[in-house]
Amino acid sequence: MEMGALESWNSGPAKSVILDFVGRVTKQGTADYVPPAERIATFDNDGTLWCEHPLQTQVFFLIDRVNDLVAKDGGMRERQPFKALLEHDTKALHALGKQGIAELFFATHTGMPVETFDRIAREWFSWARHPKFTRPFTQCIYAPQLELLEYLRTNAFKTFIVSGGGVEFIRAFAERAYGIPPEQVIGSSAKLRFEARGGRAVLMKAPELDSFDDREAKPVNIGVHIGRRPLLAFGNSDGDLAMLRYASSGDGARLALLLHHDDAEREAAYDREFQLSPLAEALDKADEYGITVVSMKRDWRTVFPST
Amino acid sequence: MEMGALESWNSGPAKSVILDFVGRVTKQGTADYVPPAERIATFDNDGTLWCEHPLQTQVFFLIDRVNDLVAKDGGMRERQPFKALLEHDTKALHALGKQGIAELFFATHTGMPVETFDRIAREWFSWARHPKFTRPFTQCIYAPQLELLEYLRTNAFKTFIVSGGGVEFIRAFAERAYGIPPEQVIGSSAKLRFEARGGRAVLMKAPELDSFDDREAKPVNIGVHIGRRPLLAFGNSDGDLAMLRYASSGDGARLALLLHHDDAEREAAYDREFQLSPLAEALDKADEYGITVVSMKRDWRTVFPST
Repeated sequence: MEMGALESWNSGPAKSVILDFVGRVTKQGTADYVPPAERIATFDNDGTLWCEHPLQTQVFFLIDRVNDLVAKDGGMRERQPFKALLEHDTKALHALGKQGIAELFFATHTGMPVETFDRIAREWFSWARHPKFTRPFTQCIYAPQLELLEYLRTNAFKTFIVSGGGVEFIRAFAERAYGIPPEQVIGSSAKLRFEARGGRAVLMKAPELDSFDDREAKPVNIGVHIGRRPLLAFGNSDGDLAMLRYASSGDGARLALLLHHDDAEREAAYDREFQLSPLAEALDKADEYGITVVSMKRDWRTVFPST
Repeated sequence: MEMGALESWNSGPAKSVILDFVGRVTKQGTADYVPPAERIATFDNDGTLWCEHPLQTQVFFLIDRVNDLVAKDGGMRERQPFKALLEHDTKALHALGKQGIAELFFATHTGMPVETFDRIAREWFSWARHPKFTRPFTQCIYAPQLELLEYLRTNAFKTFIVSGGGVEFIRAFAERAYGIPPEQVIGSSAKLRFEARGGRAVLMKAPELDSFDDREAKPVNIGVHIGRRPLLAFGNSDGDLAMLRYASSGDGARLALLLHHDDAEREAAYDREFQLSPLAEALDKADEYGITVVSMKRDWRTVFPST
């Protein structure tokens, strides 16, 4: 156990489990030892590495992008699904269903080369602020998790994001915010098409879903992208349960962690009733599946980094 | 330029271009400098990192796997497409078309958890030998390319494989053979399914194609997996042309390399007529697309590592 590691974590069972686990898998000559190359850690992003309440950051981005598009094409304001979004008409949005949501994403996130989208997202991150915490979204990340990522990397773990959020959206900030490079980000994606434009080869984001990286798709995409079973996985919702089970049912020592947002004072308290990303089954079955529940209120000394 | 780098490469234009390129992108304070995190190099595998002639290694594996299956289920011997394969009946195989080839792969590569396939492939690599070079397949890798991979990594490049071969097949040997870990291997893949088997979560390889990582799919999969345009790309066939163009048409200094198998004496001489993986368009358009052609005969001092 290193002195000074995880300072934003309160002493208690969760911190002890983490320090004990990392100590065991990195100690040569013991049964639990794992060679550095096999030390893979996978983290969900929304609600696990940064704030997702009351809405995921990407939804705020989407709303701002729709406003940008409407400023150029006023007719959009009267067309669905844009009308419902701009009027905060959740009933109409719900009625438009998955297809309506998909159209919102396609209109704002596709029809351009990946490099153009990257520029748009980076520009947005440079000024956009979280309405509740009145700080840049890239500062609504969790200090205890930054320390955990760093602690794992110091112990030769390779850290990955495995998120339901859009992969290019996350790549636009994750390297600077978390120290996680683009090639270690797995996320939801639109299909890409290879095109030659004026002699230059580009990848176009097409208006068609490639992978919705949620639930069972998370371990599947870990298989495709990483090709190793994670040693440690960290999530916060039922969407992460399959990934947590995949990690925890591997051979040897494994650690699956579930963040419970129970801190209305410092961040937010939500679980079963949070429609966008509920936490119910994973909480109920944590014991059965050997998942360690982390309480934001109890286990975290601080939530956000000091600005 | 480092002394002693690339000893298996003969002095000449190809070696000079490589040393000059790496020198420029790693020299701080110059226009061509690229930060370490952005130094991505992508390599095709068959015919670029190891021998693919007269057949790709995975085809030899497939034939051995079919023989294993026939030993357990004799009826298979009389069923297509297995009959045609076992009788080397290329005419019948051709008539069975893509569906026949797919069935051969599904029967031998799927219907099991990825971890089971990994064990089967590793066991095969432990004894199987190349019929022409009478050495283990894992020793039919190219010494000059091992040096190049190492030279790039010494200069803070991250090296990736982007291959039409099966991703799990390559992952079973690439770390030991090339120093390229599973998470830096992109390849063709069958769909994976998350399943709970006796309380244990596994990824099953299903008999359905997910991605055939060839031609335009190579840059597309680079976009999905890596999220950065490669600084350097190396291939040897028309199947690599889209990847080479994607790399070479990025901003700043870029290097695209194409290996020409013109060495009948030490390895093999083939290009346009090699049905499994022809080289024609990429050779014809190398100049136009700014691709450097590497001649095995002229540019490589040695081909295979000494055993």
